[in-house]
Amino acid sequence: MTHDPSAIPGYDYGTGRVSRSPVTLEALAQLKKAADLTEEDQRYLSLAGEILADQAEDMVSAWRARIGANEHLARWFQKPDGQPDDRYKAAVKPRFVQWVIDTCTRPYDQAWLDYQEEIGLRHTPEKKNATDRASAPPLVPLRYVVAFTSVVITTTREFLGNKGHSPEQIEHMQAAWTKAVLLSVALWSRPYTKPGLW
Amino acid sequence: MTHDPSAIPGYDYGTGRVSRSPVTLEALAQLKKAADLTEEDQRYLSLAGEILADQAEDMVSAWRARIGANEHLARWFQKPDGQPDDRYKAAVKPRFVQWVIDTCTRPYDQAWLDYQEEIGLRHTPEKKNATDRASAPPLVPLRYVVAFTSVVITTTREFLGNKGHSPEQIEHMQAAWTKAVLLSVALWSRPYTKPGLW
Repeated sequence: MTHDPSAIPGYDYGTGRVSRSPVTLEALAQLKKAADLTEEDQRYLSLAGEILADQAEDMVSAWRARIGANEHLARWFQKPDGQPDDRYKAAVKPRFVQWVIDTCTRPYDQAWLDYQEEIGLRHTPEKKNATDRASAPPLVPLRYVVAFTSVVITTTREFLGNKGHSPEQIEHMQAAWTKAVLLSVALWSRPYTKPGLW
Repeated sequence: MTHDPSAIPGYDYGTGRVSRSPVTLEALAQLKKAADLTEEDQRYLSLAGEILADQAEDMVSAWRARIGANEHLARWFQKPDGQPDDRYKAAVKPRFVQWVIDTCTRPYDQAWLDYQEEIGLRHTPEKKNATDRASAPPLVPLRYVVAFTSVVITTTREFLGNKGHSPEQIEHMQAAWTKAVLLSVALWSRPYTKPGLW
């Protein structure tokens, strides 16, 4: 595969442009237990990564279409004149696609943890728009991040079923994906949360 | 069925003891769209409600066992001496069971909306412990609420499959349950969130 994610503009995974997460690796281990994300799940995530790699762009396109069809979701990616910020959306897309692949294939280590914090920050006023010098609203509200997670979880099942795996394998992968996505969202919620309540 | 939820101590659904949610019904409608919770999903939730009603206590017992086995999850239900607060846990349990049933069977109207706000508050310092006059820590951290959602979602599939329904029906119910749970968690996250970021 010639795909080189480090060539994606603004994809700062593992670089010094990403700050260290305030969450410790010990706290991450506890959070993984809370989500029941096991070693077996991580093996099924690897398999899911093989299945989803060449479908990840279609997945993101489907999610984007749904966002675009709902004004209350689309507006967080619009210019001040209320038109879609196509340059901004185009810049974000390959990183969103890479997130699908990373969620399945990356070890959940310090670099992964740091980048989850970065993703969270990029949805809040602290860093929204900054990477792409966009002029969209400075936020994606937490309620939409959490609620839309159900779309990200439920629609993935069809893509996992596109390569001839058994119902049991698909079910294992779907469960592992669910756990991994909710682990990620739990980490993204940190900068949204009142001090002491996260 | 002789089950009367209004007899459950502290279960204040639809009563004047629950404050009005600051979330409007219009905002709820938008959030349902974000979670892609459709009319068809609500029909599958009704079917899930029939299947889960007499299994809901077993579901909660299984979740509780998992919480109890992890000190970092169990400690939010412990007395100041570090022992489990069995009276508190026993008081919460029938409400947790009723939540499973309500999520499947209640209309998502003003009373439902108000009670989701109440559930959120009962996990934060504003109302934690108050209903049951417990002396556990004044919080269940948001990260654990979000991460543990994956357990609530993924383990329900087995219970949905216990009554002889087709794989297609089970899959529809599982998707509807996923959307409904994440809609609920999105609402519960409100009192945890910094002003303006929810």
